[in-house]
Amino acid sequence: MLKSKHLIGLENFPISDLNKIIDTSFKFKEILQTEERKAILLKGKTIVNMFFENSTRTKISFSLAEKRLGADSINFSASTSSVKKGETLKDTVQNIESMKIDGAVIRHSHPGSSLELTKYIDGSVINAGDGSHEHPTQAILDMVTLKEKFGKIKGLKVGIVGDILNSRVARSDIFALKKLGAEVVVCGPSTLLPSDAKKLGINVTYNLNEVLHWCDAVIALRIQLERMHLGRIPSKREYHSEFGLTFERISKLKKDIVIMHPGPMNRGVEIDSKVADSENAVILDQVLNGVASRMSILYLLLGDGKNNL
Amino acid sequence: MLKSKHLIGLENFPISDLNKIIDTSFKFKEILQTEERKAILLKGKTIVNMFFENSTRTKISFSLAEKRLGADSINFSASTSSVKKGETLKDTVQNIESMKIDGAVIRHSHPGSSLELTKYIDGSVINAGDGSHEHPTQAILDMVTLKEKFGKIKGLKVGIVGDILNSRVARSDIFALKKLGAEVVVCGPSTLLPSDAKKLGINVTYNLNEVLHWCDAVIALRIQLERMHLGRIPSKREYHSEFGLTFERISKLKKDIVIMHPGPMNRGVEIDSKVADSENAVILDQVLNGVASRMSILYLLLGDGKNNL
Amino acid sequence: MLKSKHLIGLENFPISDLNKIIDTSFKFKEILQTEERKAILLKGKTIVNMFFENSTRTKISFSLAEKRLGADSINFSASTSSVKKGETLKDTVQNIESMKIDGAVIRHSHPGSSLELTKYIDGSVINAGDGSHEHPTQAILDMVTLKEKFGKIKGLKVGIVGDILNSRVARSDIFALKKLGAEVVVCGPSTLLPSDAKKLGINVTYNLNEVLHWCDAVIALRIQLERMHLGRIPSKREYHSEFGLTFERISKLKKDIVIMHPGPMNRGVEIDSKVADSENAVILDQVLNGVASRMSILYLLLGDGKNNL
Repeated sequence: MLKSKHLIGLENFPISDLNKIIDTSFKFKEILQTEERKAILLKGKTIVNMFFENSTRTKISFSLAEKRLGADSINFSASTSSVKKGETLKDTVQNIESMKIDGAVIRHSHPGSSLELTKYIDGSVINAGDGSHEHPTQAILDMVTLKEKFGKIKGLKVGIVGDILNSRVARSDIFALKKLGAEVVVCGPSTLLPSDAKKLGINVTYNLNEVLHWCDAVIALRIQLERMHLGRIPSKREYHSEFGLTFERISKLKKDIVIMHPGPMNRGVEIDSKVADSENAVILDQVLNGVASRMSILYLLLGDGKNNL
Repeated sequence: MLKSKHLIGLENFPISDLNKIIDTSFKFKEILQTEERKAILLKGKTIVNMFFENSTRTKISFSLAEKRLGADSINFSASTSSVKKGETLKDTVQNIESMKIDGAVIRHSHPGSSLELTKYIDGSVINAGDGSHEHPTQAILDMVTLKEKFGKIKGLKVGIVGDILNSRVARSDIFALKKLGAEVVVCGPSTLLPSDAKKLGINVTYNLNEVLHWCDAVIALRIQLERMHLGRIPSKREYHSEFGLTFERISKLKKDIVIMHPGPMNRGVEIDSKVADSENAVILDQVLNGVASRMSILYLLLGDGKNNL
Repeated sequence: MLKSKHLIGLENFPISDLNKIIDTSFKFKEILQTEERKAILLKGKTIVNMFFENSTRTKISFSLAEKRLGADSINFSASTSSVKKGETLKDTVQNIESMKIDGAVIRHSHPGSSLELTKYIDGSVINAGDGSHEHPTQAILDMVTLKEKFGKIKGLKVGIVGDILNSRVARSDIFALKKLGAEVVVCGPSTLLPSDAKKLGINVTYNLNEVLHWCDAVIALRIQLERMHLGRIPSKREYHSEFGLTFERISKLKKDIVIMHPGPMNRGVEIDSKVADSENAVILDQVLNGVASRMSILYLLLGDGKNNL
């Protein structure tokens, strides 16, 4: 029902497919708000969830989306698997695929791992985060959240703050936002900003206040605290004072802006609790939209058109 | 269908709710003994099982109860989750809850953790053990087992032997037994007995034989072997000779007493194999009653009255 | 529907049961190739999967087989269980069984563990690999694969190459092949060959080329690389040159032979990639036949005859 068979990244994803997924997500969100919460549209389909990295929300979000579509899911986590026995990713996946799988959701630390999978398996592959490359389902749920809040994405001014260079969320968000006609400014420590901003069609700044005064919505990225030890990120305190969404900063603005965060949050570092829990924050909406978006993605990629929404 | 929305502990739990859960457990036990074993009463409900501590029987027991009620369950274990990423319990739970959850079962090493959850989530919270605080579902299955065996709980004489001070099982059992009119004597090394026995309405003794001669049923608690190294529990051998349910002790009694243990057992320490496997032991009945009790609890807390038993 | 209640090993398994399982596997393979992929024949049955050793393919294969038969399954993995608390296998299993279980699938490093289980539980036990003893479901899927390829097993010439001495796959394959009338030659380093070849009714050789020229099908076993450090296996390089299914060796044969491997493969050690991925390799067929075989086994052991295929 889409042009695409897989969802690997948004960089080259057809805009018509992206729009169809976003629009369909709203239908699933309605279903999630009924008492039944289910739409048995993928009965008999088998989906394997392969999480080679730890994850809570993304894994649970996909699991719930699958259950609520009536699909069968198989969970595969690297920590209890034979990946430790030195088997290649290719063999692991081909083996699983041989058992007749309709779709594979994969999270892996290696950029390009989900693309690689498409060579080995017949079913649809959905990237649930591949290293610093892309995290397309996060970007799609962010688009759904923005569209829900503003009615449209075209013309929106969106700021993204944090470690842009290493963030798969930032990359996928940028591709989606640009494709849909939004303006994007990214902001963060100079060592963590992308060098190809021009090519991406975005602006870059080190001045957070400037971004906040300009934007309609701001996405705070999670800071990987482990990178601090490598000296590429200033201390928590310094980061918080220069790039944190502090209550002081936000309350000084003369307008309301929408506050987003992909989670999990480091409260008191990239975002103050008072901001995260404020009325302008849509962080928990993002989570529910995540389930709706993933239902939409799975339905559109794996559904065979026999069971219509 | 209960006055309570949550099951956090039995200390302040309404007696009418407790009785309703116990009585309904017997109906579920009947269902478990049919060939079908199922009663699809929670279709469309989503329950998340959050086990922040390792567990076998409680986790499996809840899983089975949920499956047999036709609910969808999501399992969340701390070891493969982003809790390691430093997220707060509040954020983890709020996120999961945002995905539209009807109930959350939680085991956590921190006393009060399940109560804390009730602040963050809309659904019902069920405490599956919070540190040394309470383990109410274990106490309920114990009550079901006693009522099954004796027909009533009022007036029963029940001994509890072991590390009373640190045992959430003992605490919940004491609250349940006292509420339902049983008499309770606890017994164990002096360092492991509670200082507030009077307030709890129970008697204390260091003499196990005395307890055994007096009681109708005895509950042997699991000794945490790791506490021995801290010097708070005597050696295994010493513990066994003073506080173990030995075959010698039990066979000298001139009457039958019911033998209970919440599991997992340290055979040869707090209980002899010959006693654990004897006809008077109801340890495996407790396990099946655990599934029935948890079905009863989930049904009464999460059911909306549309699907009646 | 079988004479046997359990599937512990093939050494003493009735030949009529073995044939019935193999024949029924082909029916399930047909079902797996339809769009629906399911045959709800075990509705209401509960199966517990107990994996005390890490596993990917066997665990997923059983899970899929159970889901596609409509059974409820409970997964139990030692790493997140109370087995760490020192409970005996007997107690763990009796407890799980008390919750009303129809079947238990067990993988454990201890030979004889699955047989031991049959003493404690009422349901059927299926051995998913017990140390170096047996791995009967692997052998059954191998028989299904051979029968699919050759139409029959009687009279087939099968070579098995590798660490025969310590391989549960080799042992189960030998029992199955001999029972069904095949001829078997095993080949490997002298320290890894069985001393009871005569009793097993098989021939032994150190010369791989001889085996390959003689056989219709060859099964390459996975080499446990950890045994190399113990000095019982030569270096990877040496092993590969003497006992590896190299492209050179295979391409020199004047006939086609079927190439099998139970996985996970050490590519470049016991088998070359070019051989593993060649047309004569049926390694991925083995995987799908694994799901079909396990559906057949579960259906025949746990089905009550009410739901017929």
